[in-house]
Amino acid sequence: MPSYAVGVDLGGTNLRIAAIDEDGTMLARTALGTEVRKGREFVVDELCRSTEGLVKEMSAKAPEHKLLGIGVGVPGLIDSETGRLVESPNLPGWSDFDVKGEIERRLGATVILENDANCAAVGEHWLGAASGYESMCMYTLGTGVGGGWILEGWLWRGWNGMAAELGHCNVYPDGHICGCGSNGCLEQYASATAVVRMARESLAEGRQSGLSRYGDRLDSRAIYECAMRGDAVAAEVFERVGRALGLAIANVVNAMNLPIHVIGGGVSSAWDAFAPAMFDEVRKRSYIYANTTEANGVGKGGRKRATSIVQAKLGGDGGLYGAARLPMM
Amino acid sequence: MPSYAVGVDLGGTNLRIAAIDEDGTMLARTALGTEVRKGREFVVDELCRSTEGLVKEMSAKAPEHKLLGIGVGVPGLIDSETGRLVESPNLPGWSDFDVKGEIERRLGATVILENDANCAAVGEHWLGAASGYESMCMYTLGTGVGGGWILEGWLWRGWNGMAAELGHCNVYPDGHICGCGSNGCLEQYASATAVVRMARESLAEGRQSGLSRYGDRLDSRAIYECAMRGDAVAAEVFERVGRALGLAIANVVNAMNLPIHVIGGGVSSAWDAFAPAMFDEVRKRSYIYANTTEANGVGKGGRKRATSIVQAKLGGDGGLYGAARLPMM
Repeated sequence: MPSYAVGVDLGGTNLRIAAIDEDGTMLARTALGTEVRKGREFVVDELCRSTEGLVKEMSAKAPEHKLLGIGVGVPGLIDSETGRLVESPNLPGWSDFDVKGEIERRLGATVILENDANCAAVGEHWLGAASGYESMCMYTLGTGVGGGWILEGWLWRGWNGMAAELGHCNVYPDGHICGCGSNGCLEQYASATAVVRMARESLAEGRQSGLSRYGDRLDSRAIYECAMRGDAVAAEVFERVGRALGLAIANVVNAMNLPIHVIGGGVSSAWDAFAPAMFDEVRKRSYIYANTTEANGVGKGGRKRATSIVQAKLGGDGGLYGAARLPMM
Repeated sequence: MPSYAVGVDLGGTNLRIAAIDEDGTMLARTALGTEVRKGREFVVDELCRSTEGLVKEMSAKAPEHKLLGIGVGVPGLIDSETGRLVESPNLPGWSDFDVKGEIERRLGATVILENDANCAAVGEHWLGAASGYESMCMYTLGTGVGGGWILEGWLWRGWNGMAAELGHCNVYPDGHICGCGSNGCLEQYASATAVVRMARESLAEGRQSGLSRYGDRLDSRAIYECAMRGDAVAAEVFERVGRALGLAIANVVNAMNLPIHVIGGGVSSAWDAFAPAMFDEVRKRSYIYANTTEANGVGKGGRKRATSIVQAKLGGDGGLYGAARLPMM
């Protein structure tokens, strides 16, 4: 009997739901302009209604398909001891809320709750840039910065289920203050939020730039486009992204020595603007990388085992595919 | 039939060899004042002769014991693709030397070559501070700083066999230059070498301190003793050790979320002098740690799963026990 799972990607601004089969084919999908800021009851309500709708649609058009379960990616930490969300700066009011139990009660199906960046790692490992690799590290550069590990084929969740908080790994100890209480976390230099903040800081210093005409509409895409057109201030912003990311990746290479690092999330589409500084920094900061990998990414000295650092392949759908994969694992 | 393995700990200054049985009992040992700086042929010669002597001694006094193999811990990176040592600042002239093949040819026994900090991790996990834990992270603070991972019971070696180079994880991007080509590696703040350097820097700045009377004989032990007697300059040195170590550990907590972190190597005996700053920094830099663990190290909010950061238990013998464990795994 063919089977499928429902993947839910609960983002900071969007709610997306899809039915995906075991071959990775998306059978049906729905995207809602759910305003997450309206609160958890509203969002969970929308999520349940839309999922029920999708399951009904599947029963009608593919009645032979069996539902394996529902995987839900959320932008927050999940405490594996309690099964609940830990207080998250991006989901105010969701702390200690039993999201999994609530959805299970309403839908009568098994729900697996997982951090959204972990879902992206699972998705990219299943069908994307890390397909075929035993182990990988995922970095998601979105509103915040997240991470995920696949180690020897399995999602590494850690002792409390909170592993791969790579956005809060430190790059500059005296750097910009972070919502987590520390200073200089990667998230303060490589998220979309940070890109806009760094650009505004440069403008506030009186730097001349085409960015000034955007005013309140300034976003990371506009900054990327300006950087690609040769705007020096915009280019510097992405060089800072690349340096911070390179520092963080070098630490992961030195610590974990994985075959592939995948960079996804909205900011990753600015690859051309930040990658040169990123590679430069990784090469300087990791002699494992420098000893095993040529500048063009192939193995050094005839080695088969180079370290790859690449862009994600599934774009914004990585987390959705990954969430659907969870009930299949 | 009872069996045993030979563990060899080839340090920067010492060569130690022991016969250890499967229960972790040390049956015989020998320590040589081998001068590693005399070069690889000299050291390998000493190593082979002493190991042969130890195996003969075992045959005479415990003829019923079967030799399982020889595990050798070396202070350098081992490339798993070639099985050879990668150029190491601490072992000049050993790069691309087939240590394993050389010893196997001479002794006619299976040899497992492993990084010395990985051996310490295996030892502490087997019989020391992390005994009973599925996963752990080891930091060895010696002449240099090394690291080792046990993940779900297995030594994590990484894609090229070079994982856990925690001494070269970055803590201060613009910090002290490191032999690896980067700046501000943990090793430049938490090794015995760094402790002496930082003390000398303070003295060179004209700071008044009891340390000045040591002259050329200044070492990390003397600095620790001065710190414990209230010398402000010495105390500051160990506060810097603690801050750097705390930054590095917080990154590992955020990235890997492991149950236990074990700190060994000679500098770890100065625990009382650096631990307060270390814990302070981990708490500030890791909200996973702060959310799961009380100041006294127990689980927060009734959690069973706190994150432990502790001193190693096997002292200088961790690597020796770990090396002997390798042929048993």
